Amino acid sequence: MEGWRGREADQLRPIRIVRGYTDTTPGSVLIEMGRTRVLATASVTDSVPRWMKRSGRGWVTGEYAMLPGSGHNRIPRSAYNSGRPKEISRLIGRSLRAVVDLNRLDEITVNVDCDVIQADGGTRTAAINAGWVALHDALQWAEDKGKADKGSLLDRVAAISVGLVKGQALLDLDYRDDMAASVDLNVVMTGRGLMVEVQGAAEQLPFSRAELDELLNLAEPGIEAIGDLQEQAISE
Amino acid sequence: MEGWRGREADQLRPIRIVRGYTDTTPGSVLIEMGRTRVLATASVTDSVPRWMKRSGRGWVTGEYAMLPGSGHNRIPRSAYNSGRPKEISRLIGRSLRAVVDLNRLDEITVNVDCDVIQADGGTRTAAINAGWVALHDALQWAEDKGKADKGSLLDRVAAISVGLVKGQALLDLDYRDDMAASVDLNVVMTGRGLMVEVQGAAEQLPFSRAELDELLNLAEPGIEAIGDLQEQAISE
Amino acid sequence: MEGWRGREADQLRPIRIVRGYTDTTPGSVLIEMGRTRVLATASVTDSVPRWMKRSGRGWVTGEYAMLPGSGHNRIPRSAYNSGRPKEISRLIGRSLRAVVDLNRLDEITVNVDCDVIQADGGTRTAAINAGWVALHDALQWAEDKGKADKGSLLDRVAAISVGLVKGQALLDLDYRDDMAASVDLNVVMTGRGLMVEVQGAAEQLPFSRAELDELLNLAEPGIEAIGDLQEQAISE
Amino acid sequence: MEGWRGREADQLRPIRIVRGYTDTTPGSVLIEMGRTRVLATASVTDSVPRWMKRSGRGWVTGEYAMLPGSGHNRIPRSAYNSGRPKEISRLIGRSLRAVVDLNRLDEITVNVDCDVIQADGGTRTAAINAGWVALHDALQWAEDKGKADKGSLLDRVAAISVGLVKGQALLDLDYRDDMAASVDLNVVMTGRGLMVEVQGAAEQLPFSRAELDELLNLAEPGIEAIGDLQEQAISE
Amino acid sequence: MEGWRGREADQLRPIRIVRGYTDTTPGSVLIEMGRTRVLATASVTDSVPRWMKRSGRGWVTGEYAMLPGSGHNRIPRSAYNSGRPKEISRLIGRSLRAVVDLNRLDEITVNVDCDVIQADGGTRTAAINAGWVALHDALQWAEDKGKADKGSLLDRVAAISVGLVKGQALLDLDYRDDMAASVDLNVVMTGRGLMVEVQGAAEQLPFSRAELDELLNLAEPGIEAIGDLQEQAISE
Amino acid sequence: MEGWRGREADQLRPIRIVRGYTDTTPGSVLIEMGRTRVLATASVTDSVPRWMKRSGRGWVTGEYAMLPGSGHNRIPRSAYNSGRPKEISRLIGRSLRAVVDLNRLDEITVNVDCDVIQADGGTRTAAINAGWVALHDALQWAEDKGKADKGSLLDRVAAISVGLVKGQALLDLDYRDDMAASVDLNVVMTGRGLMVEVQGAAEQLPFSRAELDELLNLAEPGIEAIGDLQEQAISE
Repeated sequence: MEGWRGREADQLRPIRIVRGYTDTTPGSVLIEMGRTRVLATASVTDSVPRWMKRSGRGWVTGEYAMLPGSGHNRIPRSAYNSGRPKEISRLIGRSLRAVVDLNRLDEITVNVDCDVIQADGGTRTAAINAGWVALHDALQWAEDKGKADKGSLLDRVAAISVGLVKGQALLDLDYRDDMAASVDLNVVMTGRGLMVEVQGAAEQLPFSRAELDELLNLAEPGIEAIGDLQEQAISE
Repeated sequence: MEGWRGREADQLRPIRIVRGYTDTTPGSVLIEMGRTRVLATASVTDSVPRWMKRSGRGWVTGEYAMLPGSGHNRIPRSAYNSGRPKEISRLIGRSLRAVVDLNRLDEITVNVDCDVIQADGGTRTAAINAGWVALHDALQWAEDKGKADKGSLLDRVAAISVGLVKGQALLDLDYRDDMAASVDLNVVMTGRGLMVEVQGAAEQLPFSRAELDELLNLAEPGIEAIGDLQEQAISE
Repeated sequence: MEGWRGREADQLRPIRIVRGYTDTTPGSVLIEMGRTRVLATASVTDSVPRWMKRSGRGWVTGEYAMLPGSGHNRIPRSAYNSGRPKEISRLIGRSLRAVVDLNRLDEITVNVDCDVIQADGGTRTAAINAGWVALHDALQWAEDKGKADKGSLLDRVAAISVGLVKGQALLDLDYRDDMAASVDLNVVMTGRGLMVEVQGAAEQLPFSRAELDELLNLAEPGIEAIGDLQEQAISE
Repeated sequence: MEGWRGREADQLRPIRIVRGYTDTTPGSVLIEMGRTRVLATASVTDSVPRWMKRSGRGWVTGEYAMLPGSGHNRIPRSAYNSGRPKEISRLIGRSLRAVVDLNRLDEITVNVDCDVIQADGGTRTAAINAGWVALHDALQWAEDKGKADKGSLLDRVAAISVGLVKGQALLDLDYRDDMAASVDLNVVMTGRGLMVEVQGAAEQLPFSRAELDELLNLAEPGIEAIGDLQEQAISE
Repeated sequence: MEGWRGREADQLRPIRIVRGYTDTTPGSVLIEMGRTRVLATASVTDSVPRWMKRSGRGWVTGEYAMLPGSGHNRIPRSAYNSGRPKEISRLIGRSLRAVVDLNRLDEITVNVDCDVIQADGGTRTAAINAGWVALHDALQWAEDKGKADKGSLLDRVAAISVGLVKGQALLDLDYRDDMAASVDLNVVMTGRGLMVEVQGAAEQLPFSRAELDELLNLAEPGIEAIGDLQEQAISE
Repeated sequence: MEGWRGREADQLRPIRIVRGYTDTTPGSVLIEMGRTRVLATASVTDSVPRWMKRSGRGWVTGEYAMLPGSGHNRIPRSAYNSGRPKEISRLIGRSLRAVVDLNRLDEITVNVDCDVIQADGGTRTAAINAGWVALHDALQWAEDKGKADKGSLLDRVAAISVGLVKGQALLDLDYRDDMAASVDLNVVMTGRGLMVEVQGAAEQLPFSRAELDELLNLAEPGIEAIGDLQEQAISE
């Protein structure tokens, strides 16, 4: 166990999922993963992107932003529009769509908005984890309103980051871990244990195939544990 | 007492002020006024706007935005840049500056960012009310860090909305009140009972001088009561 | 009488209203209030904002901008899009709508564009004062063309600024007054003497209820006098 | 003589030049060419574009925009930023710079802002004609203030449009002429009778070398006549 | 013959036209004029600009941009949106439209995109020269697909720049010529020898009518020679 | 062997690398991977991003865009600024930086601009493959000019896409493969066989760990083969 990390290499930070955090949108979930705090709200609108008009299918999309005071340096509000947040928005959208049967949706769009209230590493994975619960509630609502057929949600989806710090594989990187990591891998998996996204990047040190395997081995049980918390949240 | 309003004409909604809601910025306050919920964070940066460079004074500014899921219709993130939010941002900035001695600040800027998490009327007044507590903590922090002289905060400041609904003056309008109101007046006052801002607007029905007086009479004790809650928050 | 001001505390600057200043739009009015000069043109277009489509009602909106050479420092053209001008645009729109029966308009929009040719204080009030005359002519034109029912204009509307300079209440602040004022109050009233907008702001010194009353007492007869000039202009 | 045109083929519209139209900028000129009305103001700022810093030379630049109500269809304010106005802005800047000795200016910029108040054809030429007078006054002011050496203005510059309507060459096209013209040629010349810009465009019908010659023959005396009016204006 | 120029005053640079350079668009032409290299692609889309809807006519438009690495200083990608490129885009569009019978097109738009791969002077003329060949192929394609009537292309169009360097008229300016030139004239002519555009600008030294004539005399045979190469390209 | 694919599952498309394609930038490389064609130019500027000022280190960054005519539907030029291209730009930058010792660079920035001339799948990998060669030449140039210490380039880097089509793992997906693929994986590796980026995404069907392994097994020799071609290019 690392002194400064305060938990085992394969240990998640304490996770808390508050469902129905606000009541203006059908889905609204506040997640805490350690000090990281993200609010995911899922809205349903009766339209689809232009290129889907008259397709008879619906759409699910994600948007990610950091509140100005969520980090140690103030983040200008316009930054939601820059490269990194847009990239994360796209990741969230793809991850959630991977477990939705868009054919079962009317021509509606589910917008899953993820706002980081406090950032301490792993915000994109927290966004996906909360986003799925919010999506679940929004699809339920849509099904109840007759805007979607039953069974539009095919599976659950959850995410975690893993990384190599001084050659050691660590689960669920907080900000300090992240700064120290030579490799950062985000993994998104379904409830059935299949992968939806694998994004590994090495700015400092390239990594070997064996290291990739070790990181994936660490991520899998972590995601499973998060999935259990998601299930628990929606069954409350 | 109005049946649908569920409280007296001169009664505030229940107010809850959570100080230190996040820990990434020196000031961070979550306020609830009824169902309205606003997060105000106050950051301190070591620079001032270009036109103040080398003035030897600091600056205090505000920014207001609504989270995409904070209202019943999804609000696009780019909307923070449109007329109404910008106007409210300016109001917040002026209101807070009215109780700060900018000469006692080094060339620093205090950014008070107000994000509406759930909107049910009175969001701009909630932003000012929470913003002042966040500002208090940020100035305290700046004084401790030697970035401001003692006594930079001159007084407290608080705000409330009042309005005329079917000719009756009501305190602290929620969304439903607001929709029904023929006149909407926002009042910002200091702890000494002086006015900082008075903004009354009649889109539906112009109002008489007597009605303006009645509204102001209603606002004053309301603001005083909020001021007591602010004092209580900072003394905890 | 103040030496440098050159007129009584309760005296308006000389006002000149030139109706039909240009002939490309149904309404076109140049106003001079002392050295302040504003051109207001009112155009009519056969459409309404998206959210009003199929409402069977029309819309009136305002836009305010300063020409690059209208002030002592050059104003970049893009500034029309920043906070202050947008806020004034919204004020103009609300003020004019307060005296129009939108139900009597077909689905048309009256755009009242106010361009400041020379700025010497009170530009927003000059814009409203000229804007109303331009609006009058545009609605007349619309009624003649069958795009509006008779009686769409319910009343006149006019505006003035008042302020406290060294504790003294002054009417119709020019730029020098405005710089010296501790409080600045803009008042918009109808021909019937009712208020449409009251916007008081104290960046320097908060003000008492008694001072607010004194300022309002000063504004009322000033607005009435402007209203007389408006009436005279439209009867020529 | 064309009936609908109401003047000879080689006749200018009535021209009026009002110098010192506003007093906030060192140069300020209102020009009327028939119904076309343009305000040109010339401001002086103590800086130059980035690429000229430390060159020891000054800069002259132009900006062209149409007021929203200057044409028969409302022009959105953002249009100043689109292709045609930007192209005209560049033309104005080049034309004015052609008669200025930039080496005689300190590191200052003269901004000549041309706002079309009413458009009836020939607005770019009106802008150059008024712009030169405003530039003259701004350079005079700069020389008086010690920001430029004597003799910074080398010559005068003026512009006119000519065009072919049904094969006939016409001088000083108004809007109706312009719509009917198969070729449109803008010519900018100095007081010494040299050319600064020649811009001929044929959207409808290509033109022969002989027709180009005929148009240039028509433009020359027209520009000379305008130059006389400019001289007269600055000698008042 | 100028030593540093390496060719006669009336000599074109070596020109190479590669037709069908890419195969994703119906027209695709790479042109080399000396070291200047421009790729012109012509796409056909089944819509027209808003103001042409239901006109029963088609549209032809051009867009010009420089690749970031095409010049000696890196050009930011956003620059395609600034004054000079937009002005050139408009020139290309007008030049090409001058030889198209828009009435023979269905409601389609031909976009001729001109990207400068390497810039060594004369890029706008190279764009027109390549653009016409690409347009030819796109219209052929459109006619074959039944989106245009036969004979929609009325003539060919080509362009060249000429200029005065130390009083001598030079044909087809490369970058070094251009920097040295006191006058720069771009001429666009049809296959029948008629002019479509004449754009002469003197930033350094105004020019006389005689000099203009000399430049035009030089341009004409140059354009004719380019026209022959265009014909050759489309006949291959 | 798939009939429509025309090559083995583990076979690369024909690759051609043209070094020194243009001569305005120190690095300039055209790559063809089958019908996909990308131009990568590497420019060197004597500055670094603001946050690196006075760090004594240099920077390497990438930018990716598609030419308007590079795909079957015209791509508006403004699209370079949207989510997908920005994400790819970031990938290119990270990949190239992974093999550069930034400490050996002066405060310079190497901009590697990748413009897709023709898109047929795998454009981001082609951009990295060509980008590395351009980067090599730019760093060589910088070292020769004394703007970088010897040995700034640590290794080579190359990329390939692999994917699952109907359960079969395919190397180097072209557009048709890509459309059919249920999983798309981009792999970036160094010359030493270490991984820099692994980006796998499943929009249609989640994938198993075994499938991921199979895809990685396919990618490795493909990247090695490309690396050989890169080496060959720089040794010419």
